[in-house]
Amino acid sequence: MTQDGRAEELEPAKRRIMEATYRALQKHGYGNLTIQHIADEFENSKTLLYYHYDGKDELLVDFLDYVLTQFLNSLPRGDRTPKEELETLVDTLLPETLSEEAYRLQLSMFELRVNAPHDEGCREEYRHVDAELTELLRDILVRGVEAGEFDVNDPEAEAELFLSILTGTRARRLTVFKPDESIEPLRAAIQSHIDRISA
Amino acid sequence: MTQDGRAEELEPAKRRIMEATYRALQKHGYGNLTIQHIADEFENSKTLLYYHYDGKDELLVDFLDYVLTQFLNSLPRGDRTPKEELETLVDTLLPETLSEEAYRLQLSMFELRVNAPHDEGCREEYRHVDAELTELLRDILVRGVEAGEFDVNDPEAEAELFLSILTGTRARRLTVFKPDESIEPLRAAIQSHIDRISA
Repeated sequence: MTQDGRAEELEPAKRRIMEATYRALQKHGYGNLTIQHIADEFENSKTLLYYHYDGKDELLVDFLDYVLTQFLNSLPRGDRTPKEELETLVDTLLPETLSEEAYRLQLSMFELRVNAPHDEGCREEYRHVDAELTELLRDILVRGVEAGEFDVNDPEAEAELFLSILTGTRARRLTVFKPDESIEPLRAAIQSHIDRISA
Repeated sequence: MTQDGRAEELEPAKRRIMEATYRALQKHGYGNLTIQHIADEFENSKTLLYYHYDGKDELLVDFLDYVLTQFLNSLPRGDRTPKEELETLVDTLLPETLSEEAYRLQLSMFELRVNAPHDEGCREEYRHVDAELTELLRDILVRGVEAGEFDVNDPEAEAELFLSILTGTRARRLTVFKPDESIEPLRAAIQSHIDRISA
């Protein structure tokens, strides 16, 4: 993560653009999104948008970084054990059901990911997202091993595996489940995996 | 799978349309695909295409069924142990690197999946794809437990988990790796999981 990508350090105009993008994606989805939709949510001039960004793609790459930072900052710290941290991460990324709005936003992010092979900047940003999440998972697993909570030999490989599980479960939920349909069996499978790697 | 979806029972014209779609997707990708591209590969009249299909979306749902059947039929049977079957499945779905053509085809199938939330027929077909693959995995795991090769308590949950791993690894490879870039760390993570569930 670049320093200037951190939400708390964003200049106010840029943060408002990010929040407008968030609302615009919730309303319109990725496929239909235009700069005008974002400007409508921005309640400021389109000119100011173009002062910051050359186009939609560049804006969305920044948005990805913003969402990642928000997500990482939103994870509860403090008095939780590493295993609880891991379970909270699963809960946050994969709630049992979704509201229509949350579904549309998650689907937008996923469509943006699938557009990455066609957009080098977007691909680099998603590579970065995956690297940050793998690092977070590795860190949780290493602390869990130290605390005697996890029994894994290779936290690096476990972290890769866990990110694939999270990405795959999300992909399956977004493409074949309806927003209000429970993904309980998929979540139970992840929980049984967490129990298996527990000491 | 519907009976008439099985490749070996397809009428010849329909099978030729499926093969033309395969080539058209390899060349043009999902985003740019038109019925004309398929007709170009078909070497028959566009009229015949429209005799069989009302439009591109309907054709692609049939194509999905065709690819699934081909994939399931292509898996080697016979003298392999369940563990070898599972490893072959991983190898087939996730080779270490991809040719440009194979990459474009896999990406097309993935883009089609991500379009599923916008197309009820496509969503149903992908739900069916996931159900068939889960069933295949469950069957391999159950036979592996019987043969003393696998040590898993709940083959149903293991199968769900394994499909999420396969889907997630494929999603990650297609969106952030380049076709000729090795996904060795992601494959090693899957192998360590297979070793862990082995007896």
